Amino acid sequence: MTFAAASTRTALPFKVRDLTLAEAGRHQIRLAENEMPGLMALRAEFGGAKPLAGARIMGSLHMTVQTAVLIETLVDLGAQVRWVSCNIFSTQDEAAAAIVVGRDGTADAPNGVPVFAWKGETLEEYWWCTDQAFDWSAEAEESGDTYIGPNMILDDGGDATLLVHKGREFELAGAVPAAAEVDTFEYTVILDLLRRSLEESPHRFTTIAADIRGVSEETTTGVHRLYELAASDALLFPAMNVNDSVTKSKFDNKYGIRHSLPDGLNRATDVLIGGKVAFVVGYGDVGKGAAEALRGQGARVIVSEVDPINALQAAMDGFQVARLESVLDTVDIFVTGTGNQHVITTQHLLGMKHLAIVANVGHFDDEIDIAGLERIEGAVKVEIKPQVHEWRLPTGRSVLVLSEGRLMNLGNATGHPSFVMSNSFTNQVLAQIELWGSPENYPVGVYTLPKILDEKVARLHLDALGVELTVLTPSQAAYIGVPVEGPYKVSHYRY
Amino acid sequence: MTFAAASTRTALPFKVRDLTLAEAGRHQIRLAENEMPGLMALRAEFGGAKPLAGARIMGSLHMTVQTAVLIETLVDLGAQVRWVSCNIFSTQDEAAAAIVVGRDGTADAPNGVPVFAWKGETLEEYWWCTDQAFDWSAEAEESGDTYIGPNMILDDGGDATLLVHKGREFELAGAVPAAAEVDTFEYTVILDLLRRSLEESPHRFTTIAADIRGVSEETTTGVHRLYELAASDALLFPAMNVNDSVTKSKFDNKYGIRHSLPDGLNRATDVLIGGKVAFVVGYGDVGKGAAEALRGQGARVIVSEVDPINALQAAMDGFQVARLESVLDTVDIFVTGTGNQHVITTQHLLGMKHLAIVANVGHFDDEIDIAGLERIEGAVKVEIKPQVHEWRLPTGRSVLVLSEGRLMNLGNATGHPSFVMSNSFTNQVLAQIELWGSPENYPVGVYTLPKILDEKVARLHLDALGVELTVLTPSQAAYIGVPVEGPYKVSHYRY
Amino acid sequence: MTFAAASTRTALPFKVRDLTLAEAGRHQIRLAENEMPGLMALRAEFGGAKPLAGARIMGSLHMTVQTAVLIETLVDLGAQVRWVSCNIFSTQDEAAAAIVVGRDGTADAPNGVPVFAWKGETLEEYWWCTDQAFDWSAEAEESGDTYIGPNMILDDGGDATLLVHKGREFELAGAVPAAAEVDTFEYTVILDLLRRSLEESPHRFTTIAADIRGVSEETTTGVHRLYELAASDALLFPAMNVNDSVTKSKFDNKYGIRHSLPDGLNRATDVLIGGKVAFVVGYGDVGKGAAEALRGQGARVIVSEVDPINALQAAMDGFQVARLESVLDTVDIFVTGTGNQHVITTQHLLGMKHLAIVANVGHFDDEIDIAGLERIEGAVKVEIKPQVHEWRLPTGRSVLVLSEGRLMNLGNATGHPSFVMSNSFTNQVLAQIELWGSPENYPVGVYTLPKILDEKVARLHLDALGVELTVLTPSQAAYIGVPVEGPYKVSHYRY
Amino acid sequence: MTFAAASTRTALPFKVRDLTLAEAGRHQIRLAENEMPGLMALRAEFGGAKPLAGARIMGSLHMTVQTAVLIETLVDLGAQVRWVSCNIFSTQDEAAAAIVVGRDGTADAPNGVPVFAWKGETLEEYWWCTDQAFDWSAEAEESGDTYIGPNMILDDGGDATLLVHKGREFELAGAVPAAAEVDTFEYTVILDLLRRSLEESPHRFTTIAADIRGVSEETTTGVHRLYELAASDALLFPAMNVNDSVTKSKFDNKYGIRHSLPDGLNRATDVLIGGKVAFVVGYGDVGKGAAEALRGQGARVIVSEVDPINALQAAMDGFQVARLESVLDTVDIFVTGTGNQHVITTQHLLGMKHLAIVANVGHFDDEIDIAGLERIEGAVKVEIKPQVHEWRLPTGRSVLVLSEGRLMNLGNATGHPSFVMSNSFTNQVLAQIELWGSPENYPVGVYTLPKILDEKVARLHLDALGVELTVLTPSQAAYIGVPVEGPYKVSHYRY
Repeated sequence: MTFAAASTRTALPFKVRDLTLAEAGRHQIRLAENEMPGLMALRAEFGGAKPLAGARIMGSLHMTVQTAVLIETLVDLGAQVRWVSCNIFSTQDEAAAAIVVGRDGTADAPNGVPVFAWKGETLEEYWWCTDQAFDWSAEAEESGDTYIGPNMILDDGGDATLLVHKGREFELAGAVPAAAEVDTFEYTVILDLLRRSLEESPHRFTTIAADIRGVSEETTTGVHRLYELAASDALLFPAMNVNDSVTKSKFDNKYGIRHSLPDGLNRATDVLIGGKVAFVVGYGDVGKGAAEALRGQGARVIVSEVDPINALQAAMDGFQVARLESVLDTVDIFVTGTGNQHVITTQHLLGMKHLAIVANVGHFDDEIDIAGLERIEGAVKVEIKPQVHEWRLPTGRSVLVLSEGRLMNLGNATGHPSFVMSNSFTNQVLAQIELWGSPENYPVGVYTLPKILDEKVARLHLDALGVELTVLTPSQAAYIGVPVEGPYKVSHYRY
Repeated sequence: MTFAAASTRTALPFKVRDLTLAEAGRHQIRLAENEMPGLMALRAEFGGAKPLAGARIMGSLHMTVQTAVLIETLVDLGAQVRWVSCNIFSTQDEAAAAIVVGRDGTADAPNGVPVFAWKGETLEEYWWCTDQAFDWSAEAEESGDTYIGPNMILDDGGDATLLVHKGREFELAGAVPAAAEVDTFEYTVILDLLRRSLEESPHRFTTIAADIRGVSEETTTGVHRLYELAASDALLFPAMNVNDSVTKSKFDNKYGIRHSLPDGLNRATDVLIGGKVAFVVGYGDVGKGAAEALRGQGARVIVSEVDPINALQAAMDGFQVARLESVLDTVDIFVTGTGNQHVITTQHLLGMKHLAIVANVGHFDDEIDIAGLERIEGAVKVEIKPQVHEWRLPTGRSVLVLSEGRLMNLGNATGHPSFVMSNSFTNQVLAQIELWGSPENYPVGVYTLPKILDEKVARLHLDALGVELTVLTPSQAAYIGVPVEGPYKVSHYRY
Repeated sequence: MTFAAASTRTALPFKVRDLTLAEAGRHQIRLAENEMPGLMALRAEFGGAKPLAGARIMGSLHMTVQTAVLIETLVDLGAQVRWVSCNIFSTQDEAAAAIVVGRDGTADAPNGVPVFAWKGETLEEYWWCTDQAFDWSAEAEESGDTYIGPNMILDDGGDATLLVHKGREFELAGAVPAAAEVDTFEYTVILDLLRRSLEESPHRFTTIAADIRGVSEETTTGVHRLYELAASDALLFPAMNVNDSVTKSKFDNKYGIRHSLPDGLNRATDVLIGGKVAFVVGYGDVGKGAAEALRGQGARVIVSEVDPINALQAAMDGFQVARLESVLDTVDIFVTGTGNQHVITTQHLLGMKHLAIVANVGHFDDEIDIAGLERIEGAVKVEIKPQVHEWRLPTGRSVLVLSEGRLMNLGNATGHPSFVMSNSFTNQVLAQIELWGSPENYPVGVYTLPKILDEKVARLHLDALGVELTVLTPSQAAYIGVPVEGPYKVSHYRY
Repeated sequence: MTFAAASTRTALPFKVRDLTLAEAGRHQIRLAENEMPGLMALRAEFGGAKPLAGARIMGSLHMTVQTAVLIETLVDLGAQVRWVSCNIFSTQDEAAAAIVVGRDGTADAPNGVPVFAWKGETLEEYWWCTDQAFDWSAEAEESGDTYIGPNMILDDGGDATLLVHKGREFELAGAVPAAAEVDTFEYTVILDLLRRSLEESPHRFTTIAADIRGVSEETTTGVHRLYELAASDALLFPAMNVNDSVTKSKFDNKYGIRHSLPDGLNRATDVLIGGKVAFVVGYGDVGKGAAEALRGQGARVIVSEVDPINALQAAMDGFQVARLESVLDTVDIFVTGTGNQHVITTQHLLGMKHLAIVANVGHFDDEIDIAGLERIEGAVKVEIKPQVHEWRLPTGRSVLVLSEGRLMNLGNATGHPSFVMSNSFTNQVLAQIELWGSPENYPVGVYTLPKILDEKVARLHLDALGVELTVLTPSQAAYIGVPVEGPYKVSHYRY
């Protein structure tokens, strides 16, 4: 561990050791603000009213420069914040450092936000960090208050939400079960953490859960978990599905990946994309962005799909649609973006061309069966550079695995660019305002933002791109039966 | 009127005068069947069970070669059918003739389906045709039955549905109102028709409405009307919103227009699209298809939008987004696809470049203010060829108006190609089967097809494109919580 | 033969029978002038000076609307003209009629240019027409002069040039050989024509050849023949290679085909291009335009090439590059654009998918082995509509052959659009001016236009597209060592 | 200076201080070899024959991983080599270190090639390095020979060639002139170097020039200088114009930039390219690649051009073509690729949007007037990170200048990827073989490689991309008059 971002509070173990890092982060935050017009507009609109006053937000979301602008927006709107990354590789240390130090703090007297995240955490460290961000005792002590945790969660992938739900479940049961043989190593780590928590503080997560007014969730995967919880009546607090705002899922997933996939491939491998055969597993929004980016660089793109509608879309967009097995040995670059598991199996890995590149942009690291790869007898892992590994296989061929199968656009590049994240994060902030400010509108359940707010997010990003919006005349608005100022579409409209 | 497609029944006034035309139509139908795998698969699956036996379908939908394959599929599934076009310019006379003559009929002994449609109807003729398709007295007489009209409607744009609703409304009121000054000429024609109907048969549409088990509607515009009727409790029978099947709205609207817009431009004008500045009004599915097609031909495309989300999409897709006024005099080709009215005004027309091309692919002819154009003093209309008119304006400049502002992809070309329509029409047939066969599931209201049927439509079109679909493993299906065989997505998924 | 364009002179056999046709043609010529800024600029620049005064131009080039604007430009610059089409299917009858009638003529008193061309000639008619355009006796009689033929040729494909060279060759030999067994039917027709000519006028082509000051040639194929003639010292007069002007070969071949290939496919078949597999034989300029157009419509494009450089370009542009045999049965649409012969053989035709479309845009009709197809036992040719034939093969499958294997963008559509042809034809006119006006600069040989004229052609087309050209500062021009006003590039620059 | 690559010889001042760096470089070289099939094929073909035995090659070309594979190929073919970078920012230190250490050397006993290059040289250091690579006295001493310099140059941009020509010129004149006021600072550095050289060794460059058998030159800019030297009879030895091999100029310039421009933008700024307005100055091969890449990422691209042919191409490819002044304040990203100077002036810089990005991919750093920027009173340069500077302008706005106006694809990224460079460098090696092995074919002058070798370069790169090449039948080859095995095109063919 070469760097540890630190809490601003004295009792916490980490310190910002490198102020240069914080200064570099501050430069980048300033440039990012220029690319995040949505968040800056929210600061301008709500900075006075402080609609998040009283909110104690525990955020679990990639600790990047863009997230730094989000965090400081939340603070400007009145919230208190503690933060962790939601991925062991995704933290940009300079951003973390700058947030800890704060806008006018120093290394010795930081006045920013407690951040528990660094690039390249172990799984134990990762969950330790998450646990730290749930511990608001320092803040409570400082304010003379009695709370022990956050009252709002801002989540990405659902790990924070999972911890509260599992923690409370085991507390109610009075015991944390032993890990089963089929459990992942990561789940073992979680169980260990919760076992310690239960010992130390047997009602901790039950108390926290009762206090939480809501969670806003960023990703497809996290949202999927929330709907499952809701369907089984296990959801403990209202949840705002930020992922399914149009300005999130159709922008972040598609246009973000379009940008950051080739960026990650380039930084990781410097391999020419043009002329190569690329295989994109999944043609959802992520796959669409990936396929467009690779074609835009001159690759020949083949797509696989399980849903016949998406498969037909891919064909109509001019892509070959094939099963991976059919074309395996002609492919140079593999990209997964399904949200499913084992879409690339060890059998696939063993049959690939020498030095084929294997990259995941679909949230979890089990899209590619990395665990299976590790179990192949005779397979040798050679680090080319951080997050780039050559796996020498017993076939005599190698594959290049990026970011160990985790999100390579974060691990090998810097994730989605600021402008895209400005859309997503403007949705996040609006979701936090809604949940915090209007709890009466949101009984326990999973919601999406009202369309007028979704349109507002888009509206806040037009000027920066020089977009001139046409305004309906009153008679045109009447003709199609919508208000002049929106919302303009029925809820099932697909964009 | 150079050709009139005719009923097969003796009492009707029109005859197929030109068997050559019918033979040419039959050739084209045969080729189209090769491009309509969805409909052919339904014939194979349901041709024995005849799920539409007993259905008397009144169809109002562009009478093209593709519609011919639809009609014959409905017949193969057991239905009786009468048909009109839903646009005065969209009929392909050879297709109409072939349908009237039937698969093994002759000009003198046609055994097909009564069709009332020809290319280039007047508005009076158009509504007369629609009225004829509602008159099932000949069929009733033949079968010794007592019905007077259809018991199912298959609609495109809602004109047939409108006539029933308005007819019943005036019958209940006991009188048809006089046309108001602000009414369009077309509405005057409708009122005249309903006035005559009321005189001759004062309960006709009330009787018909009571008999109708449902309508399946093809277009955005027609669906919009249906939701308005439902919202005001005025809807008389259940309606299936075919337009919002993914395999319809995201295929027909987008990929159909991508094909047929440049086709219509080329046939109408032979003007090079490459290098030109094209302006697309509206970036919904139609606008997206239009913009992609024009860019694919090397045009520089500018888009206008009223919805900030769609506007942002256009910008992210690399298009300039501007108000029409801002770039008016730099544009060579104008394309409207909004479903709204007067998106191109007379002021716009007067400010355009000499010989700018003005084309509508957005359903109604008032997207471009043709009525206003006709009122410009000194404006002279010169026919270059059928459906292509040069309007010489008092400014000294001219504009080229295609299809008199109506759907130019139908008026100047042959509409969406068969493969696209196979998707839409497979939805239509499934909708008719659902409404006719399971009325208990559909109380009065507006519905979309179950997602599994939408996926089925896509599935039936994959083989023809050489698409290999990947199959989920049971554990993958369980992981994402869907059945292996689908449906795969939540209802709000946007594709 | 439903229409015959006629000479304006009394002695000639054809008459414009349909003035409506001529009027329709005149409308289209007027619209085309708006799209041919290069030719219109030459009229403005040279209309007074008449640099072609004295030139008697025999033109052999597709008799389309665009060619009509070319012909009238040549006339405005002082030339006398006689014209034929260079393809049996490419004539647009209305354009021919309008040219014959002339700008202010009538059907009875035409005052235009003698044209011998109609859509759908037989090969005998085609060469008869060509022969007629070489017979300037009527003009000589009228002017009291003694010449018998043209003194300039404007050629496309080299048929006119061929006739002069072969005619003179046989006149010198004193006899026309009998056709050999391996000779094509077309060559037999040519030999018969020359045999009759030799009998009637034994020194005719020798005399004409001596009189000809030069030829400007339009196509790759024709230019290839010219270089071969020059290499064997058989070339009889200087030739300007118009094809290799950048503004011709890189515009007409590429951007013209990009436009007119999908246009021809659509008019011929109405088949959706999107989602289909298209195979483009050859990745020269024609193939590049074809591949771009098909991809722009959403097809998946596979390319074949014999030249490794072009093959590598295709791969780098994202296309699969394969031998036809490797993917034969997956392809929906075949397009040839090589200038070579038998790139699609009968074996290929027999192995294609049912109703695969076979189209040639590569000049000669033997790119696809149509002759071989006609010899397949049991193959049946069914006309779907003019220039669209279903060949039912003994395999039980059919293929759709467009324009009988000849140029389908001309046979099934209207050829390259006006703007593209304006570039090519502005080169043609400048070439005629150079050859006619400065014979001292052009001893017998094959030339390309000076680069400054090539740049001039481009320059004349910029305003119409709203292009703002940047002007070098004198110091910038000096820095790169070019005049401020051009030419800007070394001769081997590839654009 | 944090790192200095070192000579392998004892007398030289630099040492590889960091063997880890050399090991990292060796890993990357191994991966690059997989992407450089052309060079690897040459090693296989010529490694035994050693056609470069006796050649002492002084190379001046960006010292990247790809160049490392080139250098080791030259060595495998028998050459002795000394190397410098041709750009102060373009060296990849790990590649330099690996080359110095050699394939089986160690830090203490390096057995590779002397390299004088590191990332981030000053201009004095740069020319000092170049001078070092001309000093072969250590090698001569070792071999007991008498030479003092190289007998072959492999050049990129012409700096090495310049030094020999200028050095000899001043030696003949007996004096080095003082720098004039208008001279650049860099020229002053060169004059100083040559003044010292003249003092120490008055016939040094005259001797070297006489010894040099030829130079192969990589770039447009360098080639331009060579043609100027040849035109003024000042060229001292034969030169092979590698740049104008099709497989170089149409690949490296276009496809290389398509890859490395967005890579550089991303690494430098992390700014979303999608939706932004990008301005590309110049639409040559570099500009074409830049425009395609930016469009492929969803930017709206505007192009400027001085050559009307290229301008027309840009328009036909769908780009707006405008003068920079016309759209200055709407542009987010500026890219120059002209080879000319001051295409972005200080006036332009002062009028740009806040935080507009300014990037050069066109060889010299004076495309953007950086010198002028430095002279603007009140302008402040803030380093965001290495090679990324925010210039705060007196207008209150800032611009982001990448790589100080030098080649940003090298300065901010890692240059063209291996596969592209394999094409260029295979040309380089073939050029060195030609010049060294067949001097009798190349009297002093500037040459391009024979087309058959150009095609060979392409051919060596097809298998790696899965390209199947079609083979002409003998009759097809005869039909178009080419050998079955090529070359296939006339010399003026433009690809």
